[in-house]
Amino acid sequence: MLSREENALLTEVGPGTPMGELLRRYWIPTLLAEELPGPDCDPVRVRLLHERLIAFRDSRGRLGLLDEFCAHRAASLFFGRNEECGLRCAYHGWKYDVEGRCVDMPSEPEESTFKDKIRLRAYPLEERGGVIWAYLGPPPLRPPLPELEWTLLPERQRFVSKRLQECSYAQAMEGGIDSSHVSTLHRFDIANDPHFKGSRGHAYLKADTRPKFEVVESPGGLFIAARRNVDADAYYWRITQWIMPWYTLIPPFAAHNPLGGHAWVPIDDETCWAWSISFHPTRELSDDEVAGMRAGDGIHVEYEPGTYRPRANADNDYLIDRDAQRRRETFSGIRGIAIQDAAVQESMGRVVDRTKERLGTSDAGIIMARHRLLQAARAVRDGGTRPAGLDVGSHRVRAASVILPRGVSFQVGACEAMELRPETEFAAV
Amino acid sequence: MLSREENALLTEVGPGTPMGELLRRYWIPTLLAEELPGPDCDPVRVRLLHERLIAFRDSRGRLGLLDEFCAHRAASLFFGRNEECGLRCAYHGWKYDVEGRCVDMPSEPEESTFKDKIRLRAYPLEERGGVIWAYLGPPPLRPPLPELEWTLLPERQRFVSKRLQECSYAQAMEGGIDSSHVSTLHRFDIANDPHFKGSRGHAYLKADTRPKFEVVESPGGLFIAARRNVDADAYYWRITQWIMPWYTLIPPFAAHNPLGGHAWVPIDDETCWAWSISFHPTRELSDDEVAGMRAGDGIHVEYEPGTYRPRANADNDYLIDRDAQRRRETFSGIRGIAIQDAAVQESMGRVVDRTKERLGTSDAGIIMARHRLLQAARAVRDGGTRPAGLDVGSHRVRAASVILPRGVSFQVGACEAMELRPETEFAAV
Amino acid sequence: MLSREENALLTEVGPGTPMGELLRRYWIPTLLAEELPGPDCDPVRVRLLHERLIAFRDSRGRLGLLDEFCAHRAASLFFGRNEECGLRCAYHGWKYDVEGRCVDMPSEPEESTFKDKIRLRAYPLEERGGVIWAYLGPPPLRPPLPELEWTLLPERQRFVSKRLQECSYAQAMEGGIDSSHVSTLHRFDIANDPHFKGSRGHAYLKADTRPKFEVVESPGGLFIAARRNVDADAYYWRITQWIMPWYTLIPPFAAHNPLGGHAWVPIDDETCWAWSISFHPTRELSDDEVAGMRAGDGIHVEYEPGTYRPRANADNDYLIDRDAQRRRETFSGIRGIAIQDAAVQESMGRVVDRTKERLGTSDAGIIMARHRLLQAARAVRDGGTRPAGLDVGSHRVRAASVILPRGVSFQVGACEAMELRPETEFAAV
Repeated sequence: MLSREENALLTEVGPGTPMGELLRRYWIPTLLAEELPGPDCDPVRVRLLHERLIAFRDSRGRLGLLDEFCAHRAASLFFGRNEECGLRCAYHGWKYDVEGRCVDMPSEPEESTFKDKIRLRAYPLEERGGVIWAYLGPPPLRPPLPELEWTLLPERQRFVSKRLQECSYAQAMEGGIDSSHVSTLHRFDIANDPHFKGSRGHAYLKADTRPKFEVVESPGGLFIAARRNVDADAYYWRITQWIMPWYTLIPPFAAHNPLGGHAWVPIDDETCWAWSISFHPTRELSDDEVAGMRAGDGIHVEYEPGTYRPRANADNDYLIDRDAQRRRETFSGIRGIAIQDAAVQESMGRVVDRTKERLGTSDAGIIMARHRLLQAARAVRDGGTRPAGLDVGSHRVRAASVILPRGVSFQVGACEAMELRPETEFAAV
Repeated sequence: MLSREENALLTEVGPGTPMGELLRRYWIPTLLAEELPGPDCDPVRVRLLHERLIAFRDSRGRLGLLDEFCAHRAASLFFGRNEECGLRCAYHGWKYDVEGRCVDMPSEPEESTFKDKIRLRAYPLEERGGVIWAYLGPPPLRPPLPELEWTLLPERQRFVSKRLQECSYAQAMEGGIDSSHVSTLHRFDIANDPHFKGSRGHAYLKADTRPKFEVVESPGGLFIAARRNVDADAYYWRITQWIMPWYTLIPPFAAHNPLGGHAWVPIDDETCWAWSISFHPTRELSDDEVAGMRAGDGIHVEYEPGTYRPRANADNDYLIDRDAQRRRETFSGIRGIAIQDAAVQESMGRVVDRTKERLGTSDAGIIMARHRLLQAARAVRDGGTRPAGLDVGSHRVRAASVILPRGVSFQVGACEAMELRPETEFAAV
Repeated sequence: MLSREENALLTEVGPGTPMGELLRRYWIPTLLAEELPGPDCDPVRVRLLHERLIAFRDSRGRLGLLDEFCAHRAASLFFGRNEECGLRCAYHGWKYDVEGRCVDMPSEPEESTFKDKIRLRAYPLEERGGVIWAYLGPPPLRPPLPELEWTLLPERQRFVSKRLQECSYAQAMEGGIDSSHVSTLHRFDIANDPHFKGSRGHAYLKADTRPKFEVVESPGGLFIAARRNVDADAYYWRITQWIMPWYTLIPPFAAHNPLGGHAWVPIDDETCWAWSISFHPTRELSDDEVAGMRAGDGIHVEYEPGTYRPRANADNDYLIDRDAQRRRETFSGIRGIAIQDAAVQESMGRVVDRTKERLGTSDAGIIMARHRLLQAARAVRDGGTRPAGLDVGSHRVRAASVILPRGVSFQVGACEAMELRPETEFAAV
């Protein structure tokens, strides 16, 4: 339970808000690489943390992220011409380079120096791991690019998608942290999903819906360990990684399946991008796997044509099928793990009223993640220390699923499994 | 004309408002029986008086009306599983019985007593007369179920429908009380409607558009009598019943036709359910009559597929047909008595500004109904007496249409006609 | 750049606002003549300057513009019957004449004098030049009807259209005043448009994107002269007329083409009508020309069926075609001069934030037009003098395009060209 003030602190992300300022210290997953495919491609509108921006790739392939609106009279640069190393406003032809400098102003006299005074707000963009990343914070504080495992893999070993989620990023992310709902919400379909099949873990999940949680601070966030019974001697541990400020890594089901992770990125206070990444550290994804992900397998979704909004969405009650629910094909009647998550998270309203919730022991991960975020936002506001999760060392973690003898703590027993050793097999049951 | 304050008092119905508190003292028509057809059927979202609720019928057929959102983390119970005598949230499986008790909490340790502390807001639901009724008020003040004539008839003798109306309940209800508009708005079609045909009354209505109104307090509301000329010796009386807080009974056209009535129930300040009931005290409705009502005859409407929103609505100007208006098939160009009413009532805006209206003598019923409602709301606010219309005795009235000699008052001449004598013929011209 | 207060003063037009009061001193282009084609035609809803009105033509052909809502209980008169010299409310039959007098009240007793007390807000409507004009100001201050050239031409010599524009009238009008964007936004298509073809001016426009502006007060508004190079001895001048409060006349391309003009009329603070007029002072428009205008040639657009909203609009990114943009068929990728204008103007947001703009020398016309409007609004607010543009003498101007020797000022050299001499050729290059 949060107070009204804490809830606002957690969910308000516009310029000048404490959480908005905290989040601006990090690189932000912004576009799929496919959205800016090559030199002089179409510019793309971007909304991040309440800012309206335009992204483009210039004639030399350089990436730019500018204020969406021309400095002159505020026409949208979306209608502009991307050519000859700059984005030119369609209205009077003012032209900007990737750094926001006005490099041409054909409406003013040749001799005018007016254009030298014009500088459009501009942010750096970088591409890594199939994602184009933006940094919206103070230039001197710009950190190195993230080095989460999936960001460093060859293209054929990962699949990245994003979907619009119509609620606060915090609410979406809490779903990603929440490990106990797997036994319930995804109960009837997870064992059959091609991305999760063939794991002994399913049986433990079904049999024990009451995991015990142990949540421990990691350098960059939290180790969230959920313990379920195997037998009198052993526990089945599922260890989720939460990395500041919005990354989650999902404990795997069997080592032959891809791993999965998310980033939960605010568009504004009431909307976010749910980024979903499937990857395998030691092998390429198969064509079948990729085709399935495009069709909504695993943690991915099918889209409304021409958009990144899921075809199953709040307007159509997520295409709920009550008969499938009765036949126990799905617990909720909704098809697809990602859509099931979206449905419950969006159903709370755009920004859930956290003054009314009743949290239990299974919510320990959520409670601690909120705590770290709020604490970090307050520290930034008060001019405090460098927040966690900026150091790439803190990205070198893995989610894991392991069976350990009852007497062994997960920190000891899964110590190696939680460590990222590139190009090695991962620990999974 | 009302002051701004009175208009707000009349139309604001959320929790804690005086009118909202008054209306919570009554049973509320909430769902059609068909919406919760049997044990473990699909849960149904309900919005009443600004509250968001979920209705369901459990495995034993018991009805429940709960807060829509799970007490845990506020996922909507709409996506829940209705099974084994309770509604189970799809997210973590918390399960509630019809009284809102948390009866299972699979996400927490077996030994936990947390679930015993969880109680979801719950209201009683009862079925009668084809309608499922809710009571949202203080439990000790719960009155007996309504005993309006149509609520007590066998199923084959009544037809109940509801439609979404996109304006305040008060505005919709004033249309139901208003008896003088029948001569105008419904002028060209009422005599041809299969539900109203074959009455001598039509001729009097057409000939005399200027009824004289006599409005008298009844035990539960008002007798609203509109007097029109027949000849030098006689008057044609149409007596509408208004019963607190939202019921109207329509004066009949000929005794072979069904009777009609309405309930005008607030969803929120700006939207309401218009309930429409056709019934006959002494005979079953014919298959043809019922088929006609399903197609929009009488006081019923055709719907947008899968909804209770009329197919003819504000978005399409109620499918107005200007040629039909010119040919005098309809006065307004709109087809269907109920849609004609919806069109004029909704056209005023969501909440009409009653500080600007100019009421005449024909609005006497409206003036007095508002007065009684406002008075009752103030009395509840001030801790006053039990409001009218709760006593089932006050429901035992009938609307009537009668011809009386000029010297006879309607209270005397129609005394018997206005009294409900179950299973007897009713008085109609 | 305007202050926040000035921006509000410029763009807020509701009753009681200074700009709203100023604009109410002028006749307002309100409907196309075709919208009220004859006696007893369908009534038409009108929204002007934040007021909701209903326009109709009575049985004798007289025009009326009334409050949309019946004085009785506020039903919309849109559903009324237009017959026998008045508009009759569909609800209770109250009937109004074109001056707002209640001439029949069938719901009240014959002897009642209530109807004599009812008067609906009514404004005069007049037809001229294919347009029905409204006057919403104080009756004693009603000016003569506008006498802009196009308003006085025979029907076959003009074509008038209107389109919904989803931004402030001020923003739309600034686009009409802005003469420098022609070299950029319309760069690749204007020379090919059938309405602008065959002009030597195109070459000068393309070659010199940096016009020098001279802006001079005219009796009714501004002469906005943009000067471009022809050769060492001569300048090409394009002189736009801006006439208070919302008219613009476009400098022509060659004398065989029609002239063009606009009126930019507020619906409310965030929406306006862009009126577009093509006309020729000395010849009829050809059938081909008119057919082309109906299809979106020149300054006109194609509509969404049954509306005056352009088919290319913000919802579909104005049907932008990036390939056509790359092939240099259009500068912006958007087809049609009017839609190009709408796209850039609407893309700024409903009401652009003028505190952030960076105006250059090419914006001199906009700066001075704002200044005159703000000054006039303040004068009306402070009970000051009669605003400019009311006197029909001030309407007798023409836009012009001329080539003048370098030493000659446009006021001298184009003096005759800027003067309206009815039924004479106009000056155009």
